[in-house]
Amino acid sequence: MAVVGEEVSNKQIILKEYVSGFPKESDMVVKTGTIRLQLPEDSKNAILVKNLYLSCDPYMRGRMRKMEDSYVESFTPGSPITGYGVARVLDSGHPNFKKGDLVWGITGWEEYSVIKAQESVFKIQNTNVALSYYTGILGMPGMTAYVGFYELCSPKQGEYVFVSAASGAVGQLVGQFAKLLGCYVVGSAGTKEKVDLLKNKFGFDEAFNYKEEDLEATLKRYFPNGIDIYFENVGGKMLDAVLLNMRLRGRIAMCGMISQYNLEQPEGIHNLFCLITKRVRMEGFVVPDYYHMYPKFLDMILPHIKEGKITYVEDIAEGLESAPAALIGLFVGHNVGKQVVVVARE
Amino acid sequence: MAVVGEEVSNKQIILKEYVSGFPKESDMVVKTGTIRLQLPEDSKNAILVKNLYLSCDPYMRGRMRKMEDSYVESFTPGSPITGYGVARVLDSGHPNFKKGDLVWGITGWEEYSVIKAQESVFKIQNTNVALSYYTGILGMPGMTAYVGFYELCSPKQGEYVFVSAASGAVGQLVGQFAKLLGCYVVGSAGTKEKVDLLKNKFGFDEAFNYKEEDLEATLKRYFPNGIDIYFENVGGKMLDAVLLNMRLRGRIAMCGMISQYNLEQPEGIHNLFCLITKRVRMEGFVVPDYYHMYPKFLDMILPHIKEGKITYVEDIAEGLESAPAALIGLFVGHNVGKQVVVVARE
Repeated sequence: MAVVGEEVSNKQIILKEYVSGFPKESDMVVKTGTIRLQLPEDSKNAILVKNLYLSCDPYMRGRMRKMEDSYVESFTPGSPITGYGVARVLDSGHPNFKKGDLVWGITGWEEYSVIKAQESVFKIQNTNVALSYYTGILGMPGMTAYVGFYELCSPKQGEYVFVSAASGAVGQLVGQFAKLLGCYVVGSAGTKEKVDLLKNKFGFDEAFNYKEEDLEATLKRYFPNGIDIYFENVGGKMLDAVLLNMRLRGRIAMCGMISQYNLEQPEGIHNLFCLITKRVRMEGFVVPDYYHMYPKFLDMILPHIKEGKITYVEDIAEGLESAPAALIGLFVGHNVGKQVVVVARE
Repeated sequence: MAVVGEEVSNKQIILKEYVSGFPKESDMVVKTGTIRLQLPEDSKNAILVKNLYLSCDPYMRGRMRKMEDSYVESFTPGSPITGYGVARVLDSGHPNFKKGDLVWGITGWEEYSVIKAQESVFKIQNTNVALSYYTGILGMPGMTAYVGFYELCSPKQGEYVFVSAASGAVGQLVGQFAKLLGCYVVGSAGTKEKVDLLKNKFGFDEAFNYKEEDLEATLKRYFPNGIDIYFENVGGKMLDAVLLNMRLRGRIAMCGMISQYNLEQPEGIHNLFCLITKRVRMEGFVVPDYYHMYPKFLDMILPHIKEGKITYVEDIAEGLESAPAALIGLFVGHNVGKQVVVVARE
């Protein structure tokens, strides 16, 4: 048990240099520093936390390169990786947080962090669910699925929905939201195990392994009348195949493009003329723009979790040291479900 | 003067075969048949018309190839080209049209046509403007500019607007609509003459020759804060350069992609990830979906024309025989303004 004011060791995951091409575990290094478990006197609005769970998310790849004026800040080489996590407040200089509170939001890849940007930190009110859920279904990925599907896609009962990267942190929820609404839902994933999960655990109507199929023909087979809603997580060849199979007045929510993040030059998309002929709307979004809707989201999702109507699969890596491998694993699809790293179980 | 019931010669422009690659004048042939200037007894809902003006529009390229389930029907090889035009009714089997009416809508590339699909024919009520305007500013291209800009782009005063193919049938109007609303407007075109027209005649704030500039750098220079609205007429490299220069929450109305129509395989678009980072909405449309708004459009535009607040430049080719060259000319940018063919001046 950490004692206030005590100086303790603080293991950290440091990004060594900016990364080009495919990231490797060796782009990060584990380092051990020290931290005093008390905020300095003048730490107005900061909080000191003990990190419990860390989240591995595809968007973090972008932060490994030098970017200017981008939608997310680049990591700082030589400093710890930052990202979403769940943490316990040990000391607070902010009126909204007090010692003992549980929070989720942007923290450091280390045992203890001082967090300064409170607008990105939410106090956890509901603790009778797995705390790790606040890195996934009850955190950023959950909000992403919610906003992308309900706000951007204007879904209606009976519509035809396709989700790529469908067993991932976001995709598994989009599929279940669509089923709850009475849509027909097909998902793609990259292994037989994940395809089975989509059909047997998440209730997708159909699912297929994108590595083994002709994408255009497979989508044509599963969507003879076309796709009303596409939740885009991957980009590249999948997007091109989807464009050919969209239905009149279809909608595409652009959430991410994981297939493109490690390429020097993104693949070209050739079938955008289909947006015209099919009158399709394609829209990109970034979930923090919608965080004001978080309370509304919780009101919707917590009862569904309690009643067992929505389920969530996590892939949990043990220990901060396992974080680099877990993050890299996202880009080859090693994770089955939401990739979480446990730093400490209390 | 045509006499009812008389049999007269009827010159026609026939598509010889489906076309691949760049279309040539020799893909079409002038043929002379005959037509009796009276509808047969059982011609319910048909009208017989004398064609006055024909419209050359980029979307017609698509109809020169064999397409199934497309948004427009392919032409029929061996039959006359069809397209928008202005015509005088000589005989009518339809209760809404009577002999002597002027109409605009889909007709044949010939001197006289029997038109069967009345839903695509509008009666011309206002004749104190150039009749050829009903192939352009008061016809399909006018509605296209109106719908694409006002309905799809949700424009606001002071926003930054970019229009490609800006001196064309649609682009010149989008630019003027944007100026009327108090936007900053830049256009691109393919000759110095057209660039001058944009700045001096249509009141664009800036204009450039896309053939002579680095697109990405030029857009960056004209839009240091980014583009709020892009009216897309060309596709390809221009779209890629625009994506890099969009502003947060920008909107792209996808009207056409003339740079791609004669390619066997469309160019790849590499910068779609910008839709996510900039939260951009990109939406395709096909103007006949909005023809119910035509009366509202006329109410808006006719006073502007009368008061000289909106101007329109046409490129008029004389005689039906000149139609194939005029159509082909669109794809190399020969036309300055809206390309019209005069079949007959009454």
